[in-house]
Amino acid sequence: MRLLRVGPAGAERPALLEEDGTLRDLSALVRDVDGALIGDEAALSRIRAAAGARILPALDPHGLRIGPPLGRIGKIVGIGVNYRDFVATARMATPAEPVLFLKAPDTVVGPDDTVLVPRGSEKTDWEIELAVVIGRTARSLRTDDEAMAAVAGYALVNDVSEREFQNERGGQWDKGKNCETFNPLGPWLVTADEIRDPQDLRMRLWVNGALMQDSSTAEQIFPVAFLVRYVSRFMTLYPGDVINTGTPAGVAVSRPAPKPYLRAGDVMELEIEGLGRQRQQVKDA
Amino acid sequence: MRLLRVGPAGAERPALLEEDGTLRDLSALVRDVDGALIGDEAALSRIRAAAGARILPALDPHGLRIGPPLGRIGKIVGIGVNYRDFVATARMATPAEPVLFLKAPDTVVGPDDTVLVPRGSEKTDWEIELAVVIGRTARSLRTDDEAMAAVAGYALVNDVSEREFQNERGGQWDKGKNCETFNPLGPWLVTADEIRDPQDLRMRLWVNGALMQDSSTAEQIFPVAFLVRYVSRFMTLYPGDVINTGTPAGVAVSRPAPKPYLRAGDVMELEIEGLGRQRQQVKDA
Repeated sequence: MRLLRVGPAGAERPALLEEDGTLRDLSALVRDVDGALIGDEAALSRIRAAAGARILPALDPHGLRIGPPLGRIGKIVGIGVNYRDFVATARMATPAEPVLFLKAPDTVVGPDDTVLVPRGSEKTDWEIELAVVIGRTARSLRTDDEAMAAVAGYALVNDVSEREFQNERGGQWDKGKNCETFNPLGPWLVTADEIRDPQDLRMRLWVNGALMQDSSTAEQIFPVAFLVRYVSRFMTLYPGDVINTGTPAGVAVSRPAPKPYLRAGDVMELEIEGLGRQRQQVKDA
Repeated sequence: MRLLRVGPAGAERPALLEEDGTLRDLSALVRDVDGALIGDEAALSRIRAAAGARILPALDPHGLRIGPPLGRIGKIVGIGVNYRDFVATARMATPAEPVLFLKAPDTVVGPDDTVLVPRGSEKTDWEIELAVVIGRTARSLRTDDEAMAAVAGYALVNDVSEREFQNERGGQWDKGKNCETFNPLGPWLVTADEIRDPQDLRMRLWVNGALMQDSSTAEQIFPVAFLVRYVSRFMTLYPGDVINTGTPAGVAVSRPAPKPYLRAGDVMELEIEGLGRQRQQVKDA
């Protein structure tokens, strides 16, 4: 199922996008998409049954904002340097094990919300990524099966990053990963059962219509099952946590000078096969 | 005022600790301590008035667990390498600007709750720190006065860290900062008006009765006002966010071999002048 949240920021309601494109209101069934997805099989069953019986009221999508698909995110774990094509173009070494960093949930905005270039920023950059949404508490998982059982679903995310803040200010990456609006998420949370193979999803990102990233999750050095297992050794994963699984080649920082960092007026568009499309206008903070 | 939350984990109630040591139940006045402190001057005034009128019911502190003083933390920003005595003993360079990292709110436990050594950990370490609790939304603050106006209060925190995960696994520090139970916070949230000078607070930590850290916030390289201003340039601070302002000399990783990392059975005790005392038993996860 494609679950989403629609409406004004902070007042979104849960919804379901059907195969034929009809948008259905879920607010009579569940308080939020979070509760419907995350460890609540009963709520998911209610939604499936109501959708099958065609008794859910339709919503007019015209002019309706799409919010992030999750309203209550616990933590966001970012993975760095996780694509073979990224490593090749960035001339970086392939990491021996995953690089982890954190993003604060307050960076999350809807898929088509404005992205702000921070004050004083010259190096704001895009990163298309596959987001994994956790559905079960996970500690020190041992097998790939356990890891995949902990995944509630997937979403598209733009892990926006400021490269000077991230790499040139004498600290940890988090300084350039947590500016306001730096994590557009959605449009949908697609339940895990609908993604046949998370390691075979085409992903593309355009800036002002020019194709900048064109890759596939097949390029991941550490695949989803490995990442969930790995992260669960260092931090407990809870329902509602998100893992941003890394970005492929084509970001601004890896391009020849003059690097095409984002400026006010730019438009980013991105999509992952089966996970929908985002479109963000860039403005100055 | 010294505000706190008491009761079983996940079901704490708000309380006030009076000068004479009497514990008062605040649950008739405010839903949680967070709401009372963070940007809600009306709630603070209600508590002050009720306390002055001596109409708050007393609580029997005997056997009552103290939880973390905040129930809804947005994000926790950690500051690395921020004490002159730490830099001296660790033989590190004084940073030109603050080093930032993030801790997930799910690492927070009460001041006397158990701290878990992660599976496979050999290098779990302590870090006494002054925690700053944000009370107002802060973006790109320009002056120290603006920064201090954004501070709701202060608390004691133990920024527990796993040094192999943090420094020897090819990544960012976050990997060693976010294990379960790695952020004991409290006992109290002391309102900013009660801390005359946050840069003159003695801080001490003992392990199994031996004094391991004995310093003062006077040793901070970047003081609280600077840190709040600085962080607000890179990320928006919201009410309920916390800044862990760094630890002084005396952590295990900076000591001569064999470094006295934490083992199951160890007991940590720590206190900051005016902010109370913590005591944690160490167990294996």
